Amino acid sequence: MAPLKSWLSIDSNSHFSIHNLPFGIISTARNPDAHVAVAIGDYALDLYTFSQHNGFASLSMIQPHQAVFSQNTLNAFAALGRPMHRVVREYLQSVLLENGPFSNILQNNDELRQLVLIPLKDCQMHLPMAIGDYTDFYAGLHHAYNVGVLFRGPQNALQPNYKYLPVGYHGRASSVVVSGTPITRPNGQILLDPGAETKHPSVSPSRKLDIELELGCFVCKPSALGQPVGIDRAPEHLFGMVLMNDWSARDIQAWEYVPLGPFNSKNFGTTISPWVVLMDALEPFATVGIENEVPQMPYLDERDRKSHFAIDLTVSLTTSSGKTSQLSKTSAKNLLFSFPQMLAHHSIGGCPFNVGDLMGSGTISGKSTSEKGCLLEQTENGKVEVELEGGERRKFLEDGDVVSISGACGEPGALVGFGECVGEIRPAPLLQ
Amino acid sequence: MAPLKSWLSIDSNSHFSIHNLPFGIISTARNPDAHVAVAIGDYALDLYTFSQHNGFASLSMIQPHQAVFSQNTLNAFAALGRPMHRVVREYLQSVLLENGPFSNILQNNDELRQLVLIPLKDCQMHLPMAIGDYTDFYAGLHHAYNVGVLFRGPQNALQPNYKYLPVGYHGRASSVVVSGTPITRPNGQILLDPGAETKHPSVSPSRKLDIELELGCFVCKPSALGQPVGIDRAPEHLFGMVLMNDWSARDIQAWEYVPLGPFNSKNFGTTISPWVVLMDALEPFATVGIENEVPQMPYLDERDRKSHFAIDLTVSLTTSSGKTSQLSKTSAKNLLFSFPQMLAHHSIGGCPFNVGDLMGSGTISGKSTSEKGCLLEQTENGKVEVELEGGERRKFLEDGDVVSISGACGEPGALVGFGECVGEIRPAPLLQ
Repeated sequence: MAPLKSWLSIDSNSHFSIHNLPFGIISTARNPDAHVAVAIGDYALDLYTFSQHNGFASLSMIQPHQAVFSQNTLNAFAALGRPMHRVVREYLQSVLLENGPFSNILQNNDELRQLVLIPLKDCQMHLPMAIGDYTDFYAGLHHAYNVGVLFRGPQNALQPNYKYLPVGYHGRASSVVVSGTPITRPNGQILLDPGAETKHPSVSPSRKLDIELELGCFVCKPSALGQPVGIDRAPEHLFGMVLMNDWSARDIQAWEYVPLGPFNSKNFGTTISPWVVLMDALEPFATVGIENEVPQMPYLDERDRKSHFAIDLTVSLTTSSGKTSQLSKTSAKNLLFSFPQMLAHHSIGGCPFNVGDLMGSGTISGKSTSEKGCLLEQTENGKVEVELEGGERRKFLEDGDVVSISGACGEPGALVGFGECVGEIRPAPLLQ
Repeated sequence: MAPLKSWLSIDSNSHFSIHNLPFGIISTARNPDAHVAVAIGDYALDLYTFSQHNGFASLSMIQPHQAVFSQNTLNAFAALGRPMHRVVREYLQSVLLENGPFSNILQNNDELRQLVLIPLKDCQMHLPMAIGDYTDFYAGLHHAYNVGVLFRGPQNALQPNYKYLPVGYHGRASSVVVSGTPITRPNGQILLDPGAETKHPSVSPSRKLDIELELGCFVCKPSALGQPVGIDRAPEHLFGMVLMNDWSARDIQAWEYVPLGPFNSKNFGTTISPWVVLMDALEPFATVGIENEVPQMPYLDERDRKSHFAIDLTVSLTTSSGKTSQLSKTSAKNLLFSFPQMLAHHSIGGCPFNVGDLMGSGTISGKSTSEKGCLLEQTENGKVEVELEGGERRKFLEDGDVVSISGACGEPGALVGFGECVGEIRPAPLLQ
């Protein structure tokens, strides 16, 4: 497909080409009430103001629903359903397209253009969705294998259930924050000497603070208690995707997680990128994931549907010295289960979903060292050090470290990207 | 304390004596919009209508906040804070008290009394709170020990962390339902032959559907990301308590839970009782819990504060034959950690809380067989059968079984009770 061209000047490396048009929640000095926008190049197109000035006059389908653009979350827009997302996104493309059928609405209207195209640097970004429930999966096969090798050796690296179902756990919705929110190092119970005969914990700031490179996917269609979402219907329940950093305290996790799973080691903060890339924008990059050699249960069988996405992902670390190092570079193809499979599994027993529920993929790692999506893997749980630019080293994160995840599909000039998912580590509060 | 007497006739076995006044959300044929009420004897006192008719005219503190009674959840009332809960509850006691300072408001006003006192049998009960996040703990020591013995033997029954921290996991808020909601037996992956060399699961309706007798506690005060709630401040963050049945599918759980904990084995439904008994109403029954012999971390140290409650709890099962059997009878004293300790632990790493968040205690069991709070314990994971009235037997729940949890503190004539927490098992949906 030849790249589309906008009348707006867009850098060829921008994640927000006219092929993308991700949705987010902005506020500005002039309009401090948070509301809906899409990103295009270096600008946010303010859809609330656009709708107030009859920008949608030519799109009759959205007329009765324009109040969704004044909301401070995307939930109401998401709840309109995928056919409406498609219509609105394609309409906005036609408004922004050079010589597009509706390009005169903005291109030739200086006054409205000044009102609704706001430089991204002037936008305050907010959490895009009100998240009812957040679930984190563990579908990154190489990550699960690498971590399994560390704790159980290569023979027993993967648990018996791993390839049969997307293993997951319920996360803490209240702790999901938007990119840029500082992350406070958690205090918690840790075993200073895990090998000791008597296991007596100490309370301390985590000494093994880690990242997890993930993708998140939002639900846009509710399902009732007792009503599974079939695998064939699952895609229409998915709104769009974000980058996610599932910050993890490995030492707190090691002590607390038996037998009910991770808890305080995760609920001190999970960062997501602010712009939700719609499933429609990702469709051109659909691909297959990792082949699963175990027989697929009918309720998880996608019959070769391409339901993964070729998203290039990177993680970088900037230390307080100001120097930035790339920690990891991998692809979202490294997942054993897709989001439709995760939703079908999550609901097979009747678990209900609400619009705005969030599912995380689990850490995404490739096979090689440079593709590992967390420090636990890269440093073999602190046994070796990662070398950074300028001679610094890390086993785990230090206070003042800034971690940034980035991700995009496609070629320069037509990128469909997520922007960045950033967080800086702040020191733990003093214990009383 | 001598029992208080109301001018309203209240059966001495009523859970809703004037000493209680639990808060809930009702709707009626006449007023189908859900709103706030308190339970008194066989009636709901409709606080919305009461406030509309100047029932709170003598309580100036609540005047600016009366809109909370028109809400369809208790969140707004809860957010007013514990001092306001105390004032409102004590005022309502004085309205209902024989010869009370404000008894003339209703006792001598036939018209208003008819409007605001609604027979409970005419009330539709709703979920009392909008639940942001739900966490389930595992603080029932005897339950944890009994289950540990089943799977690991008596030497290793309790995991090394068990007495040092209240073990818990994030639950699924969307699956919490109010008493009376039918529970659909979940389908899911189970191992039909767990002992087989090759572990290949089947998809099937759960064959080990179980109950868990628990208490739930709601949060009424928010806390921010990165801001722990200290143990001394934790009680003012707690709104009130409910009964909880954390329905569990043991066969789904056994296959899925390694290494991230229970998931689909729990998220098909968790039932809570509709009336929230305020912490103030429970205070007279405060007591100590089970002594914990390991050194208490300062952040969990309550310094002998009485933060458990002597609540008598029963579980009964009514089969489709109509016969009812008591499955269990125990006390809420059988907890190793209190709700203030759970909150202090949950937030020590900085996990944020919102008004309406729910914490479950974990299954409450006493030491003897008749005090075991789930069938897993009672039947030793299906090895022995429980004998019911009329000659029926159970290893786990069958379709059509109705389980009811009840709980109360105090003496007849002055009971502070929860009413009932009921659910009926419906058959699993057919697999496609």
